[in-house]
Amino acid sequence: MSGTDRLQGAVPEMSAAAAAEQIPPDATVVTSGFGSVGYPKAVPLAIADSDRQRSLTVITGGSVGEEIDTELVQSEDMRRRFPYLGTQTARDAANAGDLAFHDEHISQLADGVRSGQFGSVDVALIEAVATGRDWLIPGPCIGQTPGYVEAADQLIVEVNRAQPRGVRQLHDIYCPSLPPDRAPIPLENPTGRIGDEYVTFDPEKLAAVVETDRRDSTYDFRDPTETDRTIAANLGSFLGAETERNPALAESVRVQFGVGSLGNALASTLADIDIGGRDLVYYGEVIQDGVLDLLDAGRLAGASATSLALTQEGQDRFIDSIDEYSDDIVLRPSSVSNGAELIQRFGVVTINTALEVDLHGHVNSTHIDGTHVINGVGGSGDFNRNALVTVAALPSSAKGGETSRVVPMVPHVDHTKHDIDVVVTEQGVADLRGKEPRERADELVSVAHPSFRAALREYIGRGRQYGGHAPRDLETALSWPRERQQSE
Amino acid sequence: MSGTDRLQGAVPEMSAAAAAEQIPPDATVVTSGFGSVGYPKAVPLAIADSDRQRSLTVITGGSVGEEIDTELVQSEDMRRRFPYLGTQTARDAANAGDLAFHDEHISQLADGVRSGQFGSVDVALIEAVATGRDWLIPGPCIGQTPGYVEAADQLIVEVNRAQPRGVRQLHDIYCPSLPPDRAPIPLENPTGRIGDEYVTFDPEKLAAVVETDRRDSTYDFRDPTETDRTIAANLGSFLGAETERNPALAESVRVQFGVGSLGNALASTLADIDIGGRDLVYYGEVIQDGVLDLLDAGRLAGASATSLALTQEGQDRFIDSIDEYSDDIVLRPSSVSNGAELIQRFGVVTINTALEVDLHGHVNSTHIDGTHVINGVGGSGDFNRNALVTVAALPSSAKGGETSRVVPMVPHVDHTKHDIDVVVTEQGVADLRGKEPRERADELVSVAHPSFRAALREYIGRGRQYGGHAPRDLETALSWPRERQQSE
Repeated sequence: MSGTDRLQGAVPEMSAAAAAEQIPPDATVVTSGFGSVGYPKAVPLAIADSDRQRSLTVITGGSVGEEIDTELVQSEDMRRRFPYLGTQTARDAANAGDLAFHDEHISQLADGVRSGQFGSVDVALIEAVATGRDWLIPGPCIGQTPGYVEAADQLIVEVNRAQPRGVRQLHDIYCPSLPPDRAPIPLENPTGRIGDEYVTFDPEKLAAVVETDRRDSTYDFRDPTETDRTIAANLGSFLGAETERNPALAESVRVQFGVGSLGNALASTLADIDIGGRDLVYYGEVIQDGVLDLLDAGRLAGASATSLALTQEGQDRFIDSIDEYSDDIVLRPSSVSNGAELIQRFGVVTINTALEVDLHGHVNSTHIDGTHVINGVGGSGDFNRNALVTVAALPSSAKGGETSRVVPMVPHVDHTKHDIDVVVTEQGVADLRGKEPRERADELVSVAHPSFRAALREYIGRGRQYGGHAPRDLETALSWPRERQQSE
Repeated sequence: MSGTDRLQGAVPEMSAAAAAEQIPPDATVVTSGFGSVGYPKAVPLAIADSDRQRSLTVITGGSVGEEIDTELVQSEDMRRRFPYLGTQTARDAANAGDLAFHDEHISQLADGVRSGQFGSVDVALIEAVATGRDWLIPGPCIGQTPGYVEAADQLIVEVNRAQPRGVRQLHDIYCPSLPPDRAPIPLENPTGRIGDEYVTFDPEKLAAVVETDRRDSTYDFRDPTETDRTIAANLGSFLGAETERNPALAESVRVQFGVGSLGNALASTLADIDIGGRDLVYYGEVIQDGVLDLLDAGRLAGASATSLALTQEGQDRFIDSIDEYSDDIVLRPSSVSNGAELIQRFGVVTINTALEVDLHGHVNSTHIDGTHVINGVGGSGDFNRNALVTVAALPSSAKGGETSRVVPMVPHVDHTKHDIDVVVTEQGVADLRGKEPRERADELVSVAHPSFRAALREYIGRGRQYGGHAPRDLETALSWPRERQQSE
């Protein structure tokens, strides 16, 4: 690392508009950002504002805010988008077929970009809290930044003065090499440190540095509903019993919760769960307010993630106590926070929500009625596949009880039955482990909302007439979403 | 390791019938075996022959032969079965609902057994070429043996004199610990060595040693068809171009092929593919005849697997030259051969076949018409998810051209669209990377059989009327399997 965190003479400082001019009209641009935090803001706004029409491919680290996923959609400068949709505007465009989108697992995305899965990469557009001629320090999100910076021909850095510079204390940046030179990731415990505070790069790449002063958008988590609380209680009972039973949880429990209001509510309730005095550690992808609650209550031995996803109150709390949190929170690249090898090594218990689950245990977490995407698979596949115990936690019904979230057959599969161990709703716990498809169906009916159980049992009866290991009545398997599709 | 490979006085030698008596009627039994090689034979036959009726749960390493999957089904001694069905008898029983079965990914199976995912484990029934009071040497299959031996309360060893004892030279047995004590698996190259020739165990567990002299069943691979050869040629073109293009393949190419006639034929054709003088290494789960062909031709720098799956000719060839092969072939536990962390680390290019693929890129590899299982997911999910490049290779049609293997919507998903990069048929290559669902559908129609393309395009047109990111006409999405189900 050369230089200091003050910009040197060799660093090409310029306005966002001037930096935007460096981006060719058909460029593939990779960006920082995850959990709608730490993404570039000024240059995307300048692109949207410029008279020059572009047709960009934009590959972010994960979810980003309106400066990219609203402004660049509305200005029609972004035509192709991976791996996750951060705003309703972007979702609407993808569902209208106006924005070419595909969702991707988070853990292998940087490798995919580096190995040319998305073609050549022109520009990396990265938010940082400081930069020099061959290094930068990310803000409150590491995400895919190290791999993206390596893959891109050119680098534009936004130094955002609104980000807390002290966040660098949390960083542990270790970037696995591309095969065949990849070594075992030497992380031996969830909150260990193996890397640096900064990302280095070839100084020849640095095309522009832009100073900004613009805060991230913040999350609004709704207050937990009665249903959320009942799901949390059922989850708590399950986790308590599993902790007693599972020899891999005899000493400590490492958990991950998905992003969102339910995930945040579930994380908070961990404060009340009896896990027999064992160490509790968070090994996930984002730090939500619920994780700060657990840390503040002294219930959590530490937390590892790639980014923050906080409410306004949470952001303020985090910034006020950043030095204290730096003892307990580690921020890593997504390839480590979500890495298969680490999730397996640490025996993570994962709890993610879902749109719906079917009677075989397949899970749809992204596509309403199988056709309309709401965001993307994100890191849920990384955790669901590799966790020691995989829990899908969801309310048994949606739309005020009008539709069931336990369905005969999901019209889109994000996570197969091989990856889902346990389904928790406010109706109870369905433990699918060691069970065959008929038994699984019976278990899953027991956690469906009572008003749909008869219909589900009738479907099961129709399917069993045809026999087979995994019975299905193909005539009515999709009848619920089909009726909605045809009534549109 | 104490003792020698001659049985010691402390070792309880007995007949298969006497050993079978040690197995309680409702026991959970875990066994060696993978690729229908190295599974226990004498004790299962004794159980099937005994007058005592049992209701066993049998968890094998993978595919096993008739002594388990035919005899114990017919004798009705086996009521529950994981993770893979090795015979038509077992498949029929599972599809009739008489055998409770669930398929499981291979890589995490030993961890699942050790962490109690299938309840407590009474007996490990393991085939070996030699044993002592606290060690055993597996035959031509490592599979799940180390983890299963650790998990079980009791151990019964079958020492099979028909297995080649020299196979021990191939073994590299490293068993990752259960979390939280798991360390990075220190394997740095695909044919490196980090373990032992033998598996150790607590001598208190050893309940019986049975001597046998019975060969494994052998594979019959059909001769490559014209279609196989055209698929292989298309695959070869793709691999040649990808090797040029992909920076992670700049020095060496590590490949895996699925088990079966097509996989075997595809592996053989690698001898003719131009990969620009790069090292070619096999990192997969079984050594098929095609891999021996490549080794014999000097085309392969080495091969790593967990088991063998050879024809009679291949077995003879292997046994005759076992000392020479021991320089090039390494056999490992399934948790290493199929381990996510190793497949990712080595940048494996994986080629697995499929029953069918749908217009979004989801793959069904196990359930005919979504209901009738043919074997199980095996290790295909481990490789498809974690590989650097994932190829599904399959003929475009089945049943003499009567049905299409490119379908509107698969009625069962084993591998989601997130995990499938490229689809190869005898019609061509569909590269799905960086494409959105509409583009993917067009690519996939181009590799469908010409006689089904019009119907697929009509389906696409119907789906697009309803809009959405991933268009589907839910009325006709399943109409092909539905018509077959209703005409039964």
